[in-house]
Amino acid sequence: MGKNNIAEEVKNKQVIFRNYVTGYPKESDFYITTTIIKLKVPQGSNAVLVKNLYLSCDPTMQFQMRNVQSPSGTQSFVPGSPIHGFGVAKVIDSGHQSFSEGDLVWGTTGWEEYSLIQKPETLFKIHKSDVPLSYYTGILGMPGLTAYVGLYEIVSPKKGDCVFISAASGAVGQLVGQFAKLMGCYVVGAAGTPRKVDLLKNKLGFDDAFNYKQEPDLDAALKRCFPQGIDLYFEQVGGKMLDAVLLNMKDHGSIIVCGMISQYNLVRPEPLRNLMNISFKRLSIKGFLCRDYFDRYHMFLDTVLPFIREKKIVYVEDIVEGLEKGPEALVGLFSGRNFGKQVVALANE
Amino acid sequence: MGKNNIAEEVKNKQVIFRNYVTGYPKESDFYITTTIIKLKVPQGSNAVLVKNLYLSCDPTMQFQMRNVQSPSGTQSFVPGSPIHGFGVAKVIDSGHQSFSEGDLVWGTTGWEEYSLIQKPETLFKIHKSDVPLSYYTGILGMPGLTAYVGLYEIVSPKKGDCVFISAASGAVGQLVGQFAKLMGCYVVGAAGTPRKVDLLKNKLGFDDAFNYKQEPDLDAALKRCFPQGIDLYFEQVGGKMLDAVLLNMKDHGSIIVCGMISQYNLVRPEPLRNLMNISFKRLSIKGFLCRDYFDRYHMFLDTVLPFIREKKIVYVEDIVEGLEKGPEALVGLFSGRNFGKQVVALANE
Repeated sequence: MGKNNIAEEVKNKQVIFRNYVTGYPKESDFYITTTIIKLKVPQGSNAVLVKNLYLSCDPTMQFQMRNVQSPSGTQSFVPGSPIHGFGVAKVIDSGHQSFSEGDLVWGTTGWEEYSLIQKPETLFKIHKSDVPLSYYTGILGMPGLTAYVGLYEIVSPKKGDCVFISAASGAVGQLVGQFAKLMGCYVVGAAGTPRKVDLLKNKLGFDDAFNYKQEPDLDAALKRCFPQGIDLYFEQVGGKMLDAVLLNMKDHGSIIVCGMISQYNLVRPEPLRNLMNISFKRLSIKGFLCRDYFDRYHMFLDTVLPFIREKKIVYVEDIVEGLEKGPEALVGLFSGRNFGKQVVALANE
Repeated sequence: MGKNNIAEEVKNKQVIFRNYVTGYPKESDFYITTTIIKLKVPQGSNAVLVKNLYLSCDPTMQFQMRNVQSPSGTQSFVPGSPIHGFGVAKVIDSGHQSFSEGDLVWGTTGWEEYSLIQKPETLFKIHKSDVPLSYYTGILGMPGLTAYVGLYEIVSPKKGDCVFISAASGAVGQLVGQFAKLMGCYVVGAAGTPRKVDLLKNKLGFDDAFNYKQEPDLDAALKRCFPQGIDLYFEQVGGKMLDAVLLNMKDHGSIIVCGMISQYNLVRPEPLRNLMNISFKRLSIKGFLCRDYFDRYHMFLDTVLPFIREKKIVYVEDIVEGLEKGPEALVGLFSGRNFGKQVVALANE
């Protein structure tokens, strides 16, 4: 065997999926283990071997924990194997002509220190700049593209439109609100702690915000913030919030649906009483999945990178250090424990 | 006083609204009375006085029975006064330049033998033909326009699309199905009795139909009828049916919402569990109200009258004779007792 096949073997810490989950996931649904990995792509393969730098915690990962085909089309986790999700990584070795050692990439990777990625076509190359690499799990990754597609492709609000955003301080919501402000809209967000409400009002430039956990009557809270009604609702939570929003939409208003996190883990989703307003108010409701729009990614970067550099948009991340903190961070998403985009940092580079 | 002011006075039987209703309306929420009316428009008024020929029973009338502002924007009934709705009538006397004695009209009128209509601008003139006058409460009236607008303006299915219609044998549904068949679609309807299912399959040309009351599992019934999924759902009932449909829509499918009759009278609407499919399946949901489209009425007539004359479309009516039968017929709508469009006939002309 030649020199090329003598590969360094290193320890590879991993977050392993214990077993399928029903209801809310718990930290104990995962465990940490350490295996050995060769830092070399197998000969003849067009895989790439990467060192993972940042891992993204995303609400939709909950579906991958269930023993049913994921309704969003993503691949379920395999009990006894490392979980996977979006992340930022550095190429250590490449069998694929598009990638070379040292390249920075983002895309689907494993929750482990090193991953052998069998389909590197799905990775995006990162052109290194002054922007933090972790941003490629958030504002410059899937959540950013989600916010962009929602407001720039699905329904573009007009200047002066009244826009409401649930989960407003999260990875997607904080951007939707800032995009809507740049479009000249009146923007209100709902979040689940006083600190998040303060963030929305005093750092992210929302016109108003409220803590949905402290409002005894969501309908009244929306009427207070939107005396004339809502033109556009960016829906991420579902349940009670959606029901209250239906009462407060303007005639001919629009609802963009990119998720319903409040309902993902409920065996019995909350009943809705106000769906009849869809016809009474002639509403348009449009669901979408970010992954249908990856071909817009470079157009999106051209829009959002200048916003970041000109400080027209800020982005709040909640970064925990070390793979061991991953399960806690991931599970925390479903109780809103994160403050901004939840990221797990493994290494700087 | 001149001769013009000597008006004939006649008895005027009326359906009076007893009081506001909560839950399902009952026959006893109405009573019949007889008053006296002058068959003459008051001098200086631009009202018209009509003899009512056919009255329409419409699901949305339930909202007008409640002591809350109707969410659909229609005017509530007044306790102690006659109820109102769509009807066909003959002009007896007119103070309005657009109408003359003997004209046939359709539009909003009272549930009584004679009505003084204060805003005749809202009436449509009927150009008498070989088509039954009662059709102007149904196929040539608001339900017909609703079906037309839904399929010709809101979402037009393509040839080969799989279309599902709830309340399929009703005033609107039977037309939606026939329009969709004329467009080359595969069409399935749900109805609530074996006779209605037979009507859909053997008279109205639906490809398939099922009795939703006899299906233990609506999801299974839909999977049987739509193994490849549903492209377009014409929603009129809401609740359990909508929830099962959400599981069976194709990706990028459309839902047109013109009502949710199953939920109108429920204090606690049925919970929906499958709304998350709006994003997973990238669905488009569009609500509409027929009254926004009355300017399309003549275009609609130009489309549908030839279909009727060429027998490309048939229309099933359930006509009861006499104002006294009105309350029973109206209340029957909410348990699906009607077989086709429910009409109350008062006089032939």
